[in-house]
Formats: sequence, structure tokens, C-alpha cells
Amino acid sequence: MSSKEGPYKVLLSEEELPTSWYNIQADLPTPLPPPLHPVTREPLGPEDLAPLFPMELIKQEMSQERYIEIPEEVLEVYKLYRPTPLRRAYRLEKELDTPAKIFYKDESVSMAGSHKPNTAIAQAYYNKAEGVKRLTTETGAGQWGSALALGCKFFGLDLKVFMVRISYDQKPYRRAMMHVWSADVTPSPSELTQSGRDVLAEDPDSPGSIGIAISEAVELAVADPDARYSLGSVLNHVCMHQTVLGLEAKAQMEKYGEYPDVVIGCVGGGSNFSGIAFPFMKDKLEGKEIKIMAVEPTSCPTLTKGKYEYDFGDEAELAPLVMMYTLGHKFVPSPIHAGGLRYHGASPIVSKLVNEGYVEPVSYPQLAVFESAMLFARTEGMIIAPESAHAVKCAIDEALKCKEAGESKNILFNLSGHGLLDLSGYEEYIAGNLKD
Amino acid sequence: MSSKEGPYKVLLSEEELPTSWYNIQADLPTPLPPPLHPVTREPLGPEDLAPLFPMELIKQEMSQERYIEIPEEVLEVYKLYRPTPLRRAYRLEKELDTPAKIFYKDESVSMAGSHKPNTAIAQAYYNKAEGVKRLTTETGAGQWGSALALGCKFFGLDLKVFMVRISYDQKPYRRAMMHVWSADVTPSPSELTQSGRDVLAEDPDSPGSIGIAISEAVELAVADPDARYSLGSVLNHVCMHQTVLGLEAKAQMEKYGEYPDVVIGCVGGGSNFSGIAFPFMKDKLEGKEIKIMAVEPTSCPTLTKGKYEYDFGDEAELAPLVMMYTLGHKFVPSPIHAGGLRYHGASPIVSKLVNEGYVEPVSYPQLAVFESAMLFARTEGMIIAPESAHAVKCAIDEALKCKEAGESKNILFNLSGHGLLDLSGYEEYIAGNLKD
Repeated sequence: MSSKEGPYKVLLSEEELPTSWYNIQADLPTPLPPPLHPVTREPLGPEDLAPLFPMELIKQEMSQERYIEIPEEVLEVYKLYRPTPLRRAYRLEKELDTPAKIFYKDESVSMAGSHKPNTAIAQAYYNKAEGVKRLTTETGAGQWGSALALGCKFFGLDLKVFMVRISYDQKPYRRAMMHVWSADVTPSPSELTQSGRDVLAEDPDSPGSIGIAISEAVELAVADPDARYSLGSVLNHVCMHQTVLGLEAKAQMEKYGEYPDVVIGCVGGGSNFSGIAFPFMKDKLEGKEIKIMAVEPTSCPTLTKGKYEYDFGDEAELAPLVMMYTLGHKFVPSPIHAGGLRYHGASPIVSKLVNEGYVEPVSYPQLAVFESAMLFARTEGMIIAPESAHAVKCAIDEALKCKEAGESKNILFNLSGHGLLDLSGYEEYIAGNLKD
Repeated sequence: MSSKEGPYKVLLSEEELPTSWYNIQADLPTPLPPPLHPVTREPLGPEDLAPLFPMELIKQEMSQERYIEIPEEVLEVYKLYRPTPLRRAYRLEKELDTPAKIFYKDESVSMAGSHKPNTAIAQAYYNKAEGVKRLTTETGAGQWGSALALGCKFFGLDLKVFMVRISYDQKPYRRAMMHVWSADVTPSPSELTQSGRDVLAEDPDSPGSIGIAISEAVELAVADPDARYSLGSVLNHVCMHQTVLGLEAKAQMEKYGEYPDVVIGCVGGGSNFSGIAFPFMKDKLEGKEIKIMAVEPTSCPTLTKGKYEYDFGDEAELAPLVMMYTLGHKFVPSPIHAGGLRYHGASPIVSKLVNEGYVEPVSYPQLAVFESAMLFARTEGMIIAPESAHAVKCAIDEALKCKEAGESKNILFNLSGHGLLDLSGYEEYIAGNLKD
């Protein structure tokens, strides 16, 4: 059993905040297969993406530069909540009676409560810098929508959020967060777009879906020369913006005098996983022995059961085709509480790394995940997002394997967000009403 | 207008965590008037309080020692979230275009989301150390109940919470938090106590009140030799436990190379105010010039409109009489969103300091407070508790006075908690449905 031998948390000063993001594309053994045009199926060029994104983000999406400087204006907003703490889970270790050391990067401390602002702030900045007046986006449970609302507020951009109708009705608190930061939130499907009207004509009571909401957000952005579209995961530049958290974690592990044997992140589209994993993956690609694990729900088993092939990013086939693990773009996952992990595909980079054996994917059912979340809340004291609880479950399993083997490994996971707006899921679990 | 000349936040390491609480009773110009027995009206002795509190807390309640050591076991739990950051509100300063410097101590980062765990953890520890098996308490909106649930979880105590029925029904998220940390939560009035049954006999649909819930919690504690009662504010030892935050703030201001000209806290029972104010009050009592302001809602104007006299701590006249500012123990405040500030009385120490002119009380109506909360969320990015927003409103007013006078004062306030479970209040404000 581990004993207390260092602080509960390692902090960095604002001067120690990373000043560049790490672009793993520079270090991939072979280049990524190109994204294809949804109609012509020809490789996409920058000009194809120009109606959707500002040119600097398109450049980042395709860049082969190893490090990309974080603009001063973005750093100044990051510093409101970054660097975030790296914590050692002494009380969880003790409860598990494991010789393993468990560390976690705590991204729950951002004002929006998750890692999402790391890219939201950057995206808002680059759009503003190129004269864009407003952004459009979609959101499911509202985690991404609220982060982008925060980012847009800081840089004076308007934001239109299409929020899946069923969440709009069931998650009033996240909707309220977006309103606090001045975003305009519309339940999707809506009457504002042709895509929305088409769906409503067929089913006036449609509960909506991320796929429909994407179509609405894209349609609105393309129709307005002053607007662009913003996505909170999957894309290369989004995953890259998240590496700020992994670069911090690496420096913090070093301050602790340790290096992780196992690195763990949960995967929906792949952005928080990329954030924690890529800076360590760099070492692995150079030959370092390190186990990197991607955790997903068994109800949406993209990496563990999906196929690695070209597929559309959205249900309506408006988005480009990318080479990725996918359950098929018509796949409808069951309504589990970890809403952020319900995506049919995954980041092309993460997919490639899984396909080539650099990342080990694993999946867990909902009840086991909530059981881990409860154990975490009752030892470490923190109420975490059901998404993050997938990473916790995996960390616990790895720690128990260490106990069995009598090995003292260093396990590092990313705690992507708090669960304060997910307490209804906890209440259902405690009441025994939750199903796998 | 201020310009950026230092970090956004000053952090302390775990080694810099204060190892003693500051007991202001040692430095009061004259002693506190004693509490009186609710029946005999004679001054209370320690033995009168023994059925309610463990002896160590009774000693602290009456202690004249200037510093009381924080037990190692309590420090080890504090370190999960302490020291908390001291932040400089650069973006708010810029928006106000003020020469004032605005600093705030951020107690929202605790696992329960407020300053309340500072005393909950200590109280749980002392009860456990004296062999107590379970605690009882009351809670209104659930802020205190959830903090004590967390404290009891860490020290292996059972907890019975009587939650005002109307909040029990309307605040399911805080109820869920208590459940996560294993507390047993009962809507009050309940059938479990004579006090509860009496109320229900008269009004089966009673929405409950803090006064009734206190009576139930006290009745249950007194009837069970293995149980004690716990209170989250007002009492001297509770206010003292909160000084850990003010002692940290003082050290952090020093690291910033500054000393506050104005110190501000909101007041319900007075505990978070005491926490930020007392360590600076020590200097004021020694002659230092410093303005110390206590902020309350106009709808519950205890310090600004109440009388300084002996009154009962609870509605049912079971609690001792204490010398304090009071609106009368039968006063029923209107149902504002800052539920934590709806108490008819106030800490005897804070009351005495107000009465003797050391503390300047001020009150604000609800709409002005929410306006300040919105400005804070849109500049600093943080969604704060409506209680804390009272302190923000006062800080903004002081900063605007500085602008008018062309003075660059240092303003420090305590941000007692986040508002993530208070977003319905924000939504009502934004929709224009909130009233003063």
C-alpha cells in the first residue's frame, strides 16, 4: 500500500504555462489519410474548408510543424484557470490497497468545468483575428456549447448554438450557463434552417440529434459570410489545442520526480484523450515503453468494435469523409449519462494510432463506470463527470492489476470535467434506477 | 485604468497552509456577552452544551487563546483543496475602468463548492476523536448539508440532515450531492421527531423552515448519546475555523506585495465574512487603517436594520439566547436566491464588531446583486453563488468610488462559493422574471 510521500497536488506558476501546442502530425510514422469531399470524394484542399473555418485553423488542421505557438491573447485567457493542478490520488490508492501511484490532471477547474475551453478560447481568438463576427456550433448536453460561449464572450464574438432539443429541455442548467455568457441557444431541429425544417416536416416532435444540430449549424455558417462554424472535438487542430494540458501534466510529473507507465483518457471524439496522451505518445513513438489507453462506453464502442474506414462526420452526409474508426454515421447510441462520449466516430489521429497499435482501446458499461465515480467521490471527495469516470474506472483496474502483481506502476489519467451538472445521473445510480 | 503588472492568481504550496486558526476572542477590546440558557436565562456553562457538541469544540467556543493548532488529520484533508487561490480581477477592473486593484479569495474550489468544508471537516474530526458515531444537522438550500456530508465521509461518521422541505423538493442536485457522500437526508418537518410531528399535525403541507429543521436536528442529537449536533455558521468556533482562508489571503496579498485598504465579505450567519475579515481585523484592532465591510441582502437586513440584543438562535426557542443583531427570531425572510443569507441573526462576534464600529454593514437588493454577478461572469468568467455576488456588488461600488476619486485602493473580497447549482436564479434574472 502506498504511503504519503509528496504533496497532494503539483501546481505550476503562470510563467510555466506552455507557450506552444504540440502537433503530433509532425511525428506520426506515416501521414494521415486525407479527408475527402462529401460529394466529389476528392481529397479536400484548404479552400474547401474556407467557408467553415478561419484560414489559420485550416492551416493548423493540415500543419506538419511540431510546435505551434500559442498566441499571447490566448495565453492571457488561459491564465484565468491554467495551469491546472496535477493531483495524486492518495486516498483512492489507500482504499484500493494498491502499490500503484495514481495521478490525475484536473481539468474540472476551468470556468466551464471541463477541458473544452482550451480549444474554445483558441478558436474564438483565431476567428476574431480574421474578422469573423459570429460563430455557429452544435451541442448535445451543453458541455461544448458552454465552453464556446465562454470563449466567444472573451473575444467579443456572437454565438449561435443549436442544442439537441431533448437536452435543451432536460438540461436547463447548461442552457443557462450559455445564456450567462450571452450565447443564443436554439433547440434543434429548428425552423431557422432548411435542414431543421425538413426534419420537423417529417416529425414535428423530433427530439433532435447531434447529426441534425451539426447540419443546422453548418448551414447557417455557410450562408453568412460573417460567420464560421466551430467544432469541439475530432479535428486535428482541436486535439492539438488540448495538448496544453498534457504538456503541463508532463512538466508536473517531472516535478513530482515521476514518469507515467500508463496514461489514460476517455474518448468521445477524442480531444481530451489527445490532450493527455499526445505529449507522452511523442516519447512512445521515439521508443519509450509506455501504455496508452483510450476508454469508451460499451454502448458506443467506436474504437473497440468499430471499423477503420472512411466515413462521414455527420449523419446528414454534409461533413467531409475522414479515415477513422466508426460505428457508421447512421449509428444512434443509447442515451447514457456520459453524453460527451456518444459519437459514432473518433479523431482520425487517435484512430490511426489505435489502428497501428500505439493506443490500447478498452470499453466499460455504465454501471461499472458510476461505481468508480462513487468510489472516487467518497475517497478523493470530487464529484466528476460520467465521461471522466470512464478514465477513473480504467485507472482503478490498472491499479488493481498492480496490486495482484505486486508492481508499483505510475498511472496517470485525465479528469476531463466535474459532474456537478450531472448529479441526476448519480442520484439515479444511488437509487438503483440506472441500467447498463 | 489598471494594467497587468502581476499574475492572475497567487498560489501557496501545501507547506504554506496555515497550521493554526486565529481566535479573535483573544483580541477583542472587551469580552463577548455570555450566551444564556433558553429556559433559565442564566449564563451557559460547558456542561450545558455537552449534549450538543464535543468538548473540544465547546472549549474552542469559549477559548481566549489567540491561535489554536489545526490537527494534523484536519490539515491532511484541507490539503485536498487548500490552499485556495487568491485572484486579481484584472478583467473586471478593466471593464470598470477603475484605478482600484480588486483581489478575491476563491473558496469555490472546494469539493463542496464553498468555504463550508473548512469547518465541516474540523467538526467531523473533533466529533470522531471523542467517539461520536453520528451527527445531525439542518440545511436550507443544501450548501451546509453537503459540506458536512463530505466532512463526515472523510472521518467515517454517519450524518442525518434535515433539509427544509421546499428546498428538498426544489434543489434535487444538492440533495444528490449529500447522497453521494452517504448522508441520510430527510425533508423537514418530518415524522421522526416530536417537533416535526407537532408542525405536521398543524399543517401537513408545511414547506418547512430552518427554524423547524434546527429543532428536529437538535432533538435527535440530544436523544441519542452517540450523536451530536453540528452548526455551519454563527458560533465562535465555526467562525474561527474559517480564518484559515483569511490567513492564507493575508499571506497571498503579502506575496503580491500589497495590503488591502478594504476587506469585504457577505454575511448570512457570518462565517465566511469572519474567515476573510478576522485576520485583518487583528491589525485594525491594533490601529491599522482598514475598512471592513459586511454585506447582506436588503430583504434580510440583520446588521443594517436589526437590533443589538439577546435573542434566540432558532424560531422554536430551544437554542441559547445570544447577544447579536437580530430581526427577531420569528422573522421570516422572503425567498431570495441567496438562501445562505436568510438568517434572522448573526454571529455574536461579528455583531459586537459592527456595534462597536469596527465593521461597516451595507445591504443590497437582489437585482443589483445579480447584475454584479452577471458582470463578474462576463469579465472574470466565473459563475458565482448569489451569496458571494453580494460581496462582488460591494467591491464594484468601492472600485467605482475609487474611479470617481481617482484613488488606487486595494479591494479584497471573499468569493465564498460557485453558482453552478444556482443557475436557475441566473436564468430567471436573464429572463427578467426576478424581483427585488
